[in-house]
Amino acid sequence: MIFVDGLECSKFDREIFTELRAGGLGCVTVTCGYWGDAVESMDALAHWRELERDNADLIGVARTAADIERIAAEGRTAILLGFQNTAFLSGRIGFVELFADLGVRVGQLTYNIQNDVGASCYEEVDPGLTRFGRQVVAEMNRVGMLVDLAHVGMRTARDAIEHSAVPVAVSHANPASLVPHRRNVTDDVLKALAARGGVVGLTGYRNLSGEYAHSIGAWASMVARTVDLVGTAHVGIGTDLGRKVVFEDLQWMRKGRWSRTPQYGAGSAGNPGKQPPLDWFPDTSAFPAMAAALRAEGFGAADTEALMGGNWLRVYREVLPAGDRTARAEGGAA
Amino acid sequence: MIFVDGLECSKFDREIFTELRAGGLGCVTVTCGYWGDAVESMDALAHWRELERDNADLIGVARTAADIERIAAEGRTAILLGFQNTAFLSGRIGFVELFADLGVRVGQLTYNIQNDVGASCYEEVDPGLTRFGRQVVAEMNRVGMLVDLAHVGMRTARDAIEHSAVPVAVSHANPASLVPHRRNVTDDVLKALAARGGVVGLTGYRNLSGEYAHSIGAWASMVARTVDLVGTAHVGIGTDLGRKVVFEDLQWMRKGRWSRTPQYGAGSAGNPGKQPPLDWFPDTSAFPAMAAALRAEGFGAADTEALMGGNWLRVYREVLPAGDRTARAEGGAA
Repeated sequence: MIFVDGLECSKFDREIFTELRAGGLGCVTVTCGYWGDAVESMDALAHWRELERDNADLIGVARTAADIERIAAEGRTAILLGFQNTAFLSGRIGFVELFADLGVRVGQLTYNIQNDVGASCYEEVDPGLTRFGRQVVAEMNRVGMLVDLAHVGMRTARDAIEHSAVPVAVSHANPASLVPHRRNVTDDVLKALAARGGVVGLTGYRNLSGEYAHSIGAWASMVARTVDLVGTAHVGIGTDLGRKVVFEDLQWMRKGRWSRTPQYGAGSAGNPGKQPPLDWFPDTSAFPAMAAALRAEGFGAADTEALMGGNWLRVYREVLPAGDRTARAEGGAA
Repeated sequence: MIFVDGLECSKFDREIFTELRAGGLGCVTVTCGYWGDAVESMDALAHWRELERDNADLIGVARTAADIERIAAEGRTAILLGFQNTAFLSGRIGFVELFADLGVRVGQLTYNIQNDVGASCYEEVDPGLTRFGRQVVAEMNRVGMLVDLAHVGMRTARDAIEHSAVPVAVSHANPASLVPHRRNVTDDVLKALAARGGVVGLTGYRNLSGEYAHSIGAWASMVARTVDLVGTAHVGIGTDLGRKVVFEDLQWMRKGRWSRTPQYGAGSAGNPGKQPPLDWFPDTSAFPAMAAALRAEGFGAADTEALMGGNWLRVYREVLPAGDRTARAEGGAA
């Protein structure tokens, strides 16, 4: 069984990589940035080259699904490089391919505000995927970069699912029908995502999980309810874990450089701070206990394997490039 | 009488500055860029410093309305530095003030695509001024940068008019009720603009002017009809003149770096090229003839003066900073 975490936003270092190994994580998608433009995003990628060189005994950056399986089989954790915004493109359609060549494999279309690609979940009006956004999705399909719809507005998300030639993901969110919150995802979008073969990564992040964060058993029941909604094949984990993320980091995520006034993201004025870690999920070393909780919830061995990582791996096999050459032939998305 | 052209996109050089002087232009807003990010936009401003040094006998860059009147009185043409997009901000709210300090006095909220501020006139859905966009408008008000709504979608334009504490402009477009085109502006927006003291700069650009481009008299009749719509005090000229702009420049304006497929801007697949100059408006040396055409249309001396530049000057006096210090006090927009 390969455990996969579809999204973490930790400030990674050797201690956190050691926690990944303690949890037996086979693959983690990391957040290389939120607001950085192309050059700043290259800084972040260069930093990951250093992290990889310095911690090659614990991790390896994966460019293909085969890389993930190889790195996991070696007892290391495969890292998928991702951004939680398309700011890294700096508005250039031609940069999708260049950043794919640099190893980026997951691109979230928006963070918390409207951009040139589409609307975030916090907009008053969501105009849908823009004309540029349609070209971005097509390019991401072509070069093997997973389209991530976490934080994205519902109309933009529906458009992206429709425009994408391959499965897409919501890397870290929960069903809004279970926990009402703008950052969570409506049933119609989750069902459309599933119908196209995608995966939603469920999170225990307190602001998005309500009572389902209260115990590992409650979390497992949220998994079961989501499976009832979209099917076992379309649910995975995306913890949104932010190890060593402090309040100043939260401020950056929420305000970036766009706002002169306070912004609260998934929190609120009455709840502005970093959420304390969950008792049952201090860090990724809890993954084996989560698998056990799914078995206790009633999932069989095969379903548990799918939920703990198998579904993510299926999507990666379908979406990521097959070989070292990242760019697919023009005209054929898959 | 001070002639003002609210928008030109020429590739300025000494020959074109000489044409400005032949037309007796007192002030022209120039286009420093469409798609450039912050650093590229600084490149464009540095280029204008060179142009100003090399042509100080013909032009001077104006930072205040008093500068415009002084430079015009000296027999030179005052240049207002503008951008036809907010890409120069690179998403940073703090850059509004910095670019104002560098002399930028006109900022068009969008060019031809949705951005993080609002929608262009070519979007299928216009979600209105975004949360970032509202902060940008407030900052532009504070530092004395004119909000320009040419190329902007109608809902975003209405929102910007409403959010702005000072008059705003549509620097180069015509009433859509006279010439139906997505780049032209609906009556409700023009009336809202006028109610807040703004100005629309009418253009003879063929794609936006239809039969009103056919002769200088037809153009004058378009001015008269627009005056009927919004009042004499709210109409000016914004020629959109693109001297020495060639097809490759048009391609850049239309496609920027966002599209891998052809884009036609205000043209179309059947009409993709640069429009030939108008017989009656080869360049700005025709401004005195335009004033004469307005008199022939029936406008009196005072109204002609207002239409040829006086209305623009009124807006500049209300909006631009009063002194060399660009940033106004927090909390007071005007």
